[in-house]
Amino acid sequence: MSESETETAAGIGDAAAERHKAKMAKRKAVQDAEVASKTIEKGLLLVHTGPGKGKSTAAFGLALRMLGHGHRVGVVQFVKGAWETGERRALGAFGDRVAWYSMGEGFTWETQDLRRDVAAAERAWEQVEALMADPTIALLVLDELNIALRYDYLALDRVVAALAGRRPDLHVVVTGRNAKPALTDVADLVTEFTLVRHPFAAGVKAQAGIEF
Amino acid sequence: MSESETETAAGIGDAAAERHKAKMAKRKAVQDAEVASKTIEKGLLLVHTGPGKGKSTAAFGLALRMLGHGHRVGVVQFVKGAWETGERRALGAFGDRVAWYSMGEGFTWETQDLRRDVAAAERAWEQVEALMADPTIALLVLDELNIALRYDYLALDRVVAALAGRRPDLHVVVTGRNAKPALTDVADLVTEFTLVRHPFAAGVKAQAGIEF
Repeated sequence: MSESETETAAGIGDAAAERHKAKMAKRKAVQDAEVASKTIEKGLLLVHTGPGKGKSTAAFGLALRMLGHGHRVGVVQFVKGAWETGERRALGAFGDRVAWYSMGEGFTWETQDLRRDVAAAERAWEQVEALMADPTIALLVLDELNIALRYDYLALDRVVAALAGRRPDLHVVVTGRNAKPALTDVADLVTEFTLVRHPFAAGVKAQAGIEF
Repeated sequence: MSESETETAAGIGDAAAERHKAKMAKRKAVQDAEVASKTIEKGLLLVHTGPGKGKSTAAFGLALRMLGHGHRVGVVQFVKGAWETGERRALGAFGDRVAWYSMGEGFTWETQDLRRDVAAAERAWEQVEALMADPTIALLVLDELNIALRYDYLALDRVVAALAGRRPDLHVVVTGRNAKPALTDVADLVTEFTLVRHPFAAGVKAQAGIEF
């Protein structure tokens, strides 16, 4: 039996408790110095990319967090359209503190219409520009913008220039697989979501509250 | 200039539109067959791990989604304690549809007290067992449980057995770095959050609505 098992199962000895305390006191000093060295406050550009689950979900979690601090949030969805999702309905609880625009026409394999997809992306981008100019918006979620960029529905240069030139206090989170390097180059935080195991592989269907 | 740039900038030719349509029709057939093959509905065990940002945030996004479908959600936090966070305040908007328990005493380097940390983890786990037995809870967020397991504050076998033996309709999401293999082995979906770039490296401090 390892020492740690003994500790959990049969109580913690005084020596172990003292060693832990000394180790943690050292760690706290390191942590405190680290925190003190960070002084900049600014609106961040966050990118959630990669093939794993949770990219959009984490963005809506950030929206929730921002709402909890009393701020307003804007959401523009580039792929999802009219269909109702749990996150949209739930954020409805916050009334006009959430400005929600689902501008997509559905997945590209549903529309099967390139001109329509491009036109939808253009309209969505106009909405983004309006929200970026609204000083009451603290966080902007650009859901699946990476998809619109990947398929060249929008000009990459124009999008990157607008995001890089956002007002200094605006946080923006961009989601979707295959983020363009030109975008991640100007981002403050990039998280890659990697799939380790997915239940669809075992025949589990998309379920309400989990997938939508 | 690539073909795709020409399309975006100067309109889409008929040939390009037709090629796109044919390609997407094929893709739709594949997608439809894929969706039709997935028929199982069950409560999932999800694990959000890895060193990247967004593990807890994505879990709270799932809570939001589940609330949007009218379900109840339970949250037990193993590290965070009394301090107020944006996500907690925001989920307060859903009244008793969210059962929230912050059972931690803070980071281990703050308490510097191994016995206190273990006792807090034990109390938190008792709360988890009570929520797992409550049939009105559709999703249970076990925030930073991986940390409690990593430091052996809880017996791994007991936790894994309880989670693997959960009622069939209960979804559970476990967050925290360094998920134990014994846990991920019984999970339905495991996502690794990988840090590509972090603003703290550039001196940016933890900001309300983003980090807490």
